[in-house]
Order: sequence, then C-alpha cells, then structure tokens
Amino acid sequence: MNVAKKIISKHLVSGKMEAGAEIALKIDQTLTQDATGTMAYLQFEAMGVAKVKTELSVSYVDHNTLQSGFENADDHKFLQTIASKYGIVFSPAGNGICHQVHLERFGVPGKTLIGSDSHTPTGGGIGMLAFGAGGLDVACAMAGQPFYITMPKIIKVNLTGKLRDWVSAKDIILELLRLETVKGGRGKIYEFAGAGVKTLTVPERATITNMGTELGATTSIFPSDEITKDFLARQGRISAWTEIIADDQKDYDGEIVIDLSTLEPLIAQPHMPDKVVKVKDIKGIKVDQVGIGSCTNSSLSDMLLTAEVLKGKKINKNVSFVVSPGSRQVLAMLSQSGALFNIIESGARVLESACGPCIGMGQAPKSGAVSFRTFNRNFEGRSGTKDAKVYLCSPEVALAAALSGEAADPSEYFGAKPKIKTPEKFLVDDAQFQQPEADGSKVEVVKGPNIVSLKQFAFDLTTDVVVALKVGDNISTDHILPAGAKILPYRSNLPKISEFTFGAVDADFAKRASKIPNGVIVGGENYGQGSSREHAALAPRFLNIKIVLTKSFARIHLANLINFGIIPLTFDNPADYDKINQGDNFSFSRAKDILENGEDFNILIAGKGIKIKANYNLTQRQKGILLAGGLLNWIKEKASK
Amino acid sequence: MNVAKKIISKHLVSGKMEAGAEIALKIDQTLTQDATGTMAYLQFEAMGVAKVKTELSVSYVDHNTLQSGFENADDHKFLQTIASKYGIVFSPAGNGICHQVHLERFGVPGKTLIGSDSHTPTGGGIGMLAFGAGGLDVACAMAGQPFYITMPKIIKVNLTGKLRDWVSAKDIILELLRLETVKGGRGKIYEFAGAGVKTLTVPERATITNMGTELGATTSIFPSDEITKDFLARQGRISAWTEIIADDQKDYDGEIVIDLSTLEPLIAQPHMPDKVVKVKDIKGIKVDQVGIGSCTNSSLSDMLLTAEVLKGKKINKNVSFVVSPGSRQVLAMLSQSGALFNIIESGARVLESACGPCIGMGQAPKSGAVSFRTFNRNFEGRSGTKDAKVYLCSPEVALAAALSGEAADPSEYFGAKPKIKTPEKFLVDDAQFQQPEADGSKVEVVKGPNIVSLKQFAFDLTTDVVVALKVGDNISTDHILPAGAKILPYRSNLPKISEFTFGAVDADFAKRASKIPNGVIVGGENYGQGSSREHAALAPRFLNIKIVLTKSFARIHLANLINFGIIPLTFDNPADYDKINQGDNFSFSRAKDILENGEDFNILIAGKGIKIKANYNLTQRQKGILLAGGLLNWIKEKASK
Repeated sequence: MNVAKKIISKHLVSGKMEAGAEIALKIDQTLTQDATGTMAYLQFEAMGVAKVKTELSVSYVDHNTLQSGFENADDHKFLQTIASKYGIVFSPAGNGICHQVHLERFGVPGKTLIGSDSHTPTGGGIGMLAFGAGGLDVACAMAGQPFYITMPKIIKVNLTGKLRDWVSAKDIILELLRLETVKGGRGKIYEFAGAGVKTLTVPERATITNMGTELGATTSIFPSDEITKDFLARQGRISAWTEIIADDQKDYDGEIVIDLSTLEPLIAQPHMPDKVVKVKDIKGIKVDQVGIGSCTNSSLSDMLLTAEVLKGKKINKNVSFVVSPGSRQVLAMLSQSGALFNIIESGARVLESACGPCIGMGQAPKSGAVSFRTFNRNFEGRSGTKDAKVYLCSPEVALAAALSGEAADPSEYFGAKPKIKTPEKFLVDDAQFQQPEADGSKVEVVKGPNIVSLKQFAFDLTTDVVVALKVGDNISTDHILPAGAKILPYRSNLPKISEFTFGAVDADFAKRASKIPNGVIVGGENYGQGSSREHAALAPRFLNIKIVLTKSFARIHLANLINFGIIPLTFDNPADYDKINQGDNFSFSRAKDILENGEDFNILIAGKGIKIKANYNLTQRQKGILLAGGLLNWIKEKASK
Repeated sequence: MNVAKKIISKHLVSGKMEAGAEIALKIDQTLTQDATGTMAYLQFEAMGVAKVKTELSVSYVDHNTLQSGFENADDHKFLQTIASKYGIVFSPAGNGICHQVHLERFGVPGKTLIGSDSHTPTGGGIGMLAFGAGGLDVACAMAGQPFYITMPKIIKVNLTGKLRDWVSAKDIILELLRLETVKGGRGKIYEFAGAGVKTLTVPERATITNMGTELGATTSIFPSDEITKDFLARQGRISAWTEIIADDQKDYDGEIVIDLSTLEPLIAQPHMPDKVVKVKDIKGIKVDQVGIGSCTNSSLSDMLLTAEVLKGKKINKNVSFVVSPGSRQVLAMLSQSGALFNIIESGARVLESACGPCIGMGQAPKSGAVSFRTFNRNFEGRSGTKDAKVYLCSPEVALAAALSGEAADPSEYFGAKPKIKTPEKFLVDDAQFQQPEADGSKVEVVKGPNIVSLKQFAFDLTTDVVVALKVGDNISTDHILPAGAKILPYRSNLPKISEFTFGAVDADFAKRASKIPNGVIVGGENYGQGSSREHAALAPRFLNIKIVLTKSFARIHLANLINFGIIPLTFDNPADYDKINQGDNFSFSRAKDILENGEDFNILIAGKGIKIKANYNLTQRQKGILLAGGLLNWIKEKASK
C-alpha cells in the first residue's frame, strides 16, 4: 500500500477504499483556529458530550489577533474556558499559527487530523493524514463521530533530482499548481514520492502539503522517514515517530513527475494561486509591499534564511516589508540566535506570530499596490485592498523584491546562497500551552455579548424557489463570506456576519436574499474553493438559501453545505448554466420525495419553458442530513433513536 | 531666569513674558504623526511654500499601523512623498513612536519643538520647550510662522529625596495628577527642579513630561544637566547638548513640593488619569489584560526592567499581556541583549513598535475587562471596548499584575528590585530615517483616493443659532472625535470622519448637526482636553458648528477651534450653564460687529426670557483668524496684502 492508504486502512470505520466511495475515518486529533473555532465549539457544546473523545484536540488563537473591538478578546476568553471544560489544549494568541505550532509540538506521523482550517494538510509534511474540514465536522470528531469523505484518488507526485540554489519548496508547489490548476486536485490525495523527497526537510515538505490545499486536493502527504525522525528528535519528540513509507511505488491512481533540478523561481500572479509564471518573466515590476510569513512559509528555516540574507542590508525605501514568524518557538529562537536582530535592523516591520496579513488581518497595501507575499492565497481583495495586485512566491523571491524594490530572480540578484543551519535542538517550552482541567465540570464557560448561539435550521424548502444570485467559476469562500479585519470579529455572531455575505460580489445580496423564502445560488466550476470556513454555508443558509446549483463543487464547501442543510446540485449538462439567470423562478415542490426516493431533479424554469436536469451525488447519510435540516439535527435524531 | 523663560526669551518673536499675555515663539523643530500629519501636510501644501523653514521637521508613522484597509498605506505613501518633496525627514512605520524616537535621535536641549500630537512635551525630558499643537499650527511653523500661545505661569515642581525601589517616574506624574487634577495645569508650565531631579534619568524625566499633558499643562520641562549630557553622549549626540539650568530657584509663579522618598506605587482608576490611588488600596482586583508600552513607558530601561523581572517566569494564564517597545532602537537593542527572549518566553505578545493599544489601535480587551496599562490615558472607550475598566500605572505595577493576575503592590509582591544597566552606547542607525530630496521639485506627491483636500470655510455665521449638543465637564477630544481602528483611517477624509463626531456620546449628533445651519455646542469645564487632534474642531466645523460655549477650555483644543473658525465662548457666570439646554435657540446677529468692536456677547435664549453673558478672551490676531473663517484664510489674506 501507499502511505495514504496505510493510514486510511488503519482508520477505516466504514466504506471501501475505492476512489469515489464514501468512507468514514476515525479521527485521532483535531485542531481549530479562533475564526472558525468559536462556532465549532458552540456546536460541540450543543451535542452534550462531557469531554472530547479524540486522542488530542487543540484550540489555537491565530486569526483575530488585532482586536479592534471587544469581540475578539471575548472569543478568546470563550475559547480558553470551553477548552478547559471539555479537555482541549488551548494555545493563546501570540503562540503562533495553528499549522506551524501543530507541526512543531503535536503532529504525529500516521495519525489522522482534521482541522477547521483549510490548510490543515500542513500536517502531511510529517506523514499525518490531515484534512481541512468545517467546524461542525470537527465538532463531530471531538464527539467521537467518524469523519466522512469520498475516497480520493491517490496521485503519486514523483520528485526527482534536487533543487538548485535559490529555488525552494514553494516553487515545487507553485509548479504543481501551474500543472494542475486550482481545481486539479479535487477528489485527490497528492502523495509525494521519489528520490527528491529525501532532499527536502520537514519545513519544506510542510510548505508543499500546506499549499496543496490550493490545488483543491483532499489532502497531500509525504512519507514519514529518517528526515521526519530527525525533525521530531530535534523537537524532543522522537517517540512520536514511526516510519511510514509506500510499499509499492506503483499503487497509485496517477503520477506526476517533477524534476526538481530543472525548476526555476516561480511566482503566482494576481488573482489566483495557479497563475504561475517564472519570476524572470515579470522581472522589473515595481513592488510596493513584501510579506514573509503565514502558515506556508514561516518556519525557523524560512526566517533564518531571511535574517541571513538581510544581514547588514536595508530594505528598499519604497517597499513596506513585513515579517511574521510562524510561532513563539520560531520567534524565541530567532531572538536567541541574533537572527531577529538582523531582520529588525534591515527595516522590517516585525508582526506578532499569527496569520496576520495572509487573511487580510492588517497590512492592507496601498491602493493599486503590487504585493509579493510568501503566503498561499492571492484572491482578489483578500489583502484588504480591493485593487491590490498580490503575487505568491518563495521567501527567496520575496527577499530579492524587498531589497531591490522590484521583481527579480533571486538566482540572478543574489550571489552564492548562504548555508542555513538549523539547530540540533529546538527550544521546547510546552508551558505556553494551557492544559484543560482534569475535572471540567466546574469550569464556567464565558460567553461575551457577541457570541450568539447557533440557530437550528429545519428542512423547510417550499414550492417556489428563486435564483438569488448567479456567479462564475472558481468562486472562493472569500467571495462568499470575506475575511479581513472588519468581518472576522463577527464569526461567533451569525445574524451579524450574514450581512456581509457576497458583499464584495453583490452589495445587495444579503438584503435581497433574506426576503426570498427559498433562494438558489447558481455557480460555475469549483464553487466554494479556498478557506474551510463553514460560515460560507451557514450565512447563506441564514439568508434562506436552500439550494446551490453549480458545474462543480470544492470538497470542504460541499460538505459544509450538506452539514447546514443546503442541497448541493450540479448541472447534468454544464451548458445549461447559460440558460439560467438571476431572478429566475422554478418549482421545487417534490424535493423531499426526490431526495428520499432517489429520483432525478428536473427543473422547469417558470415562463421560459426551459428544462434543466440537476444531479445530486449524495450518499444515504448525506440525504439523511439534508432531510434532517443539517448535521446537528441528524446527530440529535440518531442519538434520540 | 528659570529654564522655561530662558528658552522662551531666546525664541520670543512678539509679546511680553507676562503670564496671560499672548506671545509668539520662533519654532526650531516640528514633528507630526500620521493620524494628524496627513491633514497638516495638506494644509502646508496649500500654503505654497517650497520647503520647510524649520531647522528640522520629522514626519513619523506610528498611529495607523494595523492597516485594515488601503487608507492607511495610502496615507503612509502620501506622507513619504510629501516629506521628500518639502524637506522633511520621514520615519516609516515600524521605526517607533514619534516621541520616543524624537528623544533618542533628534531632540536638542534649549530648542523649541511643536508637534501635532499632544504628548510632544516628552521632549521636555531633555530640556526642550516642546508643545502639542494642532496640525495647522505645525503647518504654519513649517512655513516659518511663529507659534502663538498665552504666556503660561511657570510652576516649580520641587522634587526632594529619592524614589524607593519599585516606585518609579510614573508614580511622580501620577502623584502630580492626584494633586493637580486633569485641569490643574491649564495655562501652566511645570518646571521640575530640586535635588530629586538629579536622581532621575532622561527616560524617567520623559515619562513625567510626557504625561504632564494629562494635567492640561502648556508643557513640562526638566533642566538640561549632566544627566542629559550623558544620555545624548550615549546616543552619539553629545554635540547637541547645552547646559540649561535655572539661575534663580525663586523665579516661579508657584511651587509644588513632592518628596520622592515618600511616594508609593500609584495607579489611576477608570476613566480619568487623575483618579489616582495607591495600588495597595485596590489590592486583589482581578486583572484581564496588561499592556507595557506607549510614548509614556516604552524606553529601553522600561523594557529591560520588564525583561529582567519576567526572566524565567510565566504570565498568569488569565492575563493577556502585550508589550510594544517604543522604537526600532529599543527593539533592536532588546533583541541584541537577549532581553527580548525573556519577554517572548514569558508568554508576552510582542507588538510592532507603535502607539498601538494606547490609541485603541488594536488589543481591545474583552467585555468588562480590567486592563492595567503603562499608558497615559484611560478615557472611557478609548481602549476599543466601551465597558472596559482601564487603569494607568508604572511598568513595575503592570508586571506584578501580569504575573499575579491581580492588582498588587510591586514592593510587596516582588523581592529585591533588579539593577538595570543601560548600555554605555545606544545602537545608532540613522539609515532607518529617509532624508528628503535635495531638490524636491521633481518629487511627485502620491495621494490615494481616501485623501480628500481640505474644505475652505468662510465666516458665515448667520442670525439664528441652535444648541446642537450639551455635554458635561472634562469632555476630551476622544469624546468629540474618537480614535480607534475603525475611525483613524479616515483622518485624511473630513466628510467621512465627520460622521463619527460625538458618536459615542450621542449617535444622532452628526446627522442632527449637519441639518442645523448654525450650531452651538455647550460644554462644562476643561472642554477639549486630551489629544491634540484638530479633527475634533474640523469635524464639528464641517457639521456647521460655529460656536462652542463652555465653562472653560483645554489649551490645544481652544487654539484648534480658533484655527478653524469656531468661536470659543465661556460663561461669564458658570452657573448659567444650567440655564441652557440642547435645542435652545438664540439670536447671534451681531457676532461680526461684536468681535470687531470688542463688545460683550449677551445671549437671549428664545422663548425663555433668559439672558446669558458670554466672554471671549481673544487677542486681535485670534479675532482676525475667526473673522477670516480660519487660520489658513487668514494667512492667505496676510500674504495677499
């Protein structure tokens, strides 16, 4: 078996390991971040379970750390207290980005992990089977429920050769994005193999699996080998290591070969992570802002390289240069080694260890700015500046831009690449994590006024439905429900956050939709890509959206729609997309029967005489969830039976 | 002569050094910060002067550094380019807080400084005569105009004895606030003298002069002595030093004696800096947040103490503890010495060097939180959390709270106080400041879409005026126009920011006032205290406020009102305040004649038969400004004559 199958087979609760079949997996670990976590824990609380049933659950605060109003700090207190009550480890603000910290201190090769953050596959860097999921899925896993996915195809990414100087792991994943596009990974696990694997450190591997999310992949994974062992040993966690390598190099559903030795420094252009070109092809573009950090490129090695390159140099005066180390461990070690001094003296703005600018939480660039970032997403407007042009690149490319003020190939701009030596022992200080109370029954959960309990939805689809909005291809969850400093504080307050739904796409959407009793959203390909935020399903549902009809869905969002009782349909004939318009009416009277009986959905658009066939590729379990009005109801129904 | 008079006499352009007389001073240096600076430079630009006429002008970016939208970065770019064009040194975001940086690198004993920030008197710590002023006053000074003030009384603050361990400079200024109150300093310069002066370092002196602002003082000043010389020598600036000490210890308008040896750790309670009690009197109060930083307490010595106390310890888990070093110099030196490591490892959240939480720019505490801060203001809601209870204290008291989770007297909580040794040589790296172009004529000033040119007001007061709002005593400029992350980005956009005027006091004010052609605000004592922001005059003027009638005014705000053509009146009989209500009408037909002819204002309230006499203590110059519709018009009129 390959690495992924080895882990799946050990965690298989139900279903067959055949691509396309629904499988249920036992989940060993969960993680949440604060922006999705508050809702996940409200849902967990509603389940009435006394203590989490996972081996380990960790609640991180890394998103809403600017705190422009009381809402964020109230959320943090809620997360701290509910973690203590229910057996969850709490990592407070300032400890760093969930994925970076989890890799350092908690991840275990061979274990399953789901996280209410789409970049949870970062754990694949040490051979975990790690999935991004909706908060409700994470809540279910904490309650001991299995995690349901469609068994993906497992694609071998055969890495050959060795990266040249100034070419980095980021360029490997950018190359894969160039080859596969942002929807190429749907229904797939990318498993990295080949001789090139041994040339990559764990932080490099984690950069790759992290950004595998942008391929739309179910997850990405590396084997757990001697390099993994070495990483865990340096973290003082050698006992967590087990070897997991593929038995058979042919047991895959497909193969992609990347010769590392031929790669050049790459960059993703605005506004999609797959718009990848060689840096030298855009050479000379003036750069206004450079950011190094995010869960993709904020490891100690990324930062040590940054410090070494910047040593004794000054950032170009037309560049605003921000650095956010990935974790307190990274920051402390940078400080200890003197590397931080070199970064500070270069003129960098050193931010708190957190997601920060990657999620539009501060550092919005100036109007029309060109911003080079080592992050993972460059969706339009995500930076906080609607007309900014955000590019995604490696720290190496970012550094060349920060110093020169323009796009430059680092292998041309710099001389010999400095050798970065990471220390034999990482600085381990687990006292920074708050352990839960042994007896949580006495812990009072503190809920500030912005924390609004979840509305329970019912299956209440009635006859007449109206197309409330029609959108194009590759609509991301950032389009559906933006992040950023103005909106993120309301993640625990569904009525309030719903007002921002599709705000940047169609400012009137929320008002219009809320007046339609049964709304439909019509979308193109890869609808719901990007962040795992379940609010992108919850908020439309709050605004009476009952159906989303698209050419295709992104995986996590599809699951979120079902979890909150929105029926996901796809065009039987994608060309029918052109026949249906915003404002169109159609009747949906027999939806319940159809779902129950497995009949076809045939939509007759009122006044047009147009008939459209819509598919629903749903398991019995998923139909049951929809008919119950959502997963939470379904679990309660199951429990009461 | 005393220290203040020595400097005044050397800079006197017109007027007599007699308390109460208007004097005009030549200004040697100016500083601006970004939140007030954009407007100041728009005004300077409107004056048509080719280059600043000061010895030194510095433009700092330290307020709007979170950048939740494009507005801030656009402002920064505007400030950078206009500085380069007009001969101004530019200090970009990340370099630190204007007052801390100015003290380190630019301040010169015996020179005059005005800054568009109320805490500019920080410079008094090295014997500068430094005033907070409106942005327009700073623009005028840059254009070579003198700075007009009422010659203050000069009060000797006679410091005797020596502070005990765990009692600090912050306690001296808190004691003065306890004695004098937030309006006690109006029309006064506090000049520090006595044997106790020699026991205080420059950073300690700067903490005191900085927060002298909270007394409502015109400014505060220390002599320039051997200790000043030593500080400047360590900064590599010994040539900037001159000795300035009082010739005669009796040449003062009053004297206050403070015996340092009897002081105990003090704390200002919510919501005013003069609500000072001994820390031991509130012992045991649970503390949710602790902040060390701000222009009051972010010097290297404050931070070294913080690091030394925290070494090997962990912050209480119920406390969110934030540290923001005052400058890049401080941050770099902390990093170099290993002190930063101790702060990071304690569990602190280390923020960028900037004003940050002190101005409500992030780190809003949770609902109802108790927050202990080493800052200078604790006005209600300024933290970003309306119901938070903010206390002001020394780093020593803050540290005891951060570790214990409650109010504790540091002299009881800690053992022996560690000896802090500041280095013989500070880390000097002036390459972090951007020097202006020698020939600015070719520099293009970049104005983003949020930068709206200033509306020119005329003297257009017509017959009928209406009381648009009545407020109580000690209304601060934070009440009039709040700061905070949501509002600060609009400082360059008057129409937009005006919508927030008195927002927290009366949500309907802006709409109501804009419909009244001639509005009056009625206030109590010390109206307009706090921050120097001229927007607190500009925005009401934009909303048609033509008159402010109070029991008394704070100095900077009074000047700002005049600068923007709002007539400042005071009740002849303060008891008349009770006779006038919101919505009252009265006629003001002869305002122009009265101002021109020096007659009394006698207000007859319509329908009530109540007559009120209002005073206007205005010089001919000030009357001229009012009749011209504001200072900018007045300067143009003068230039055209």
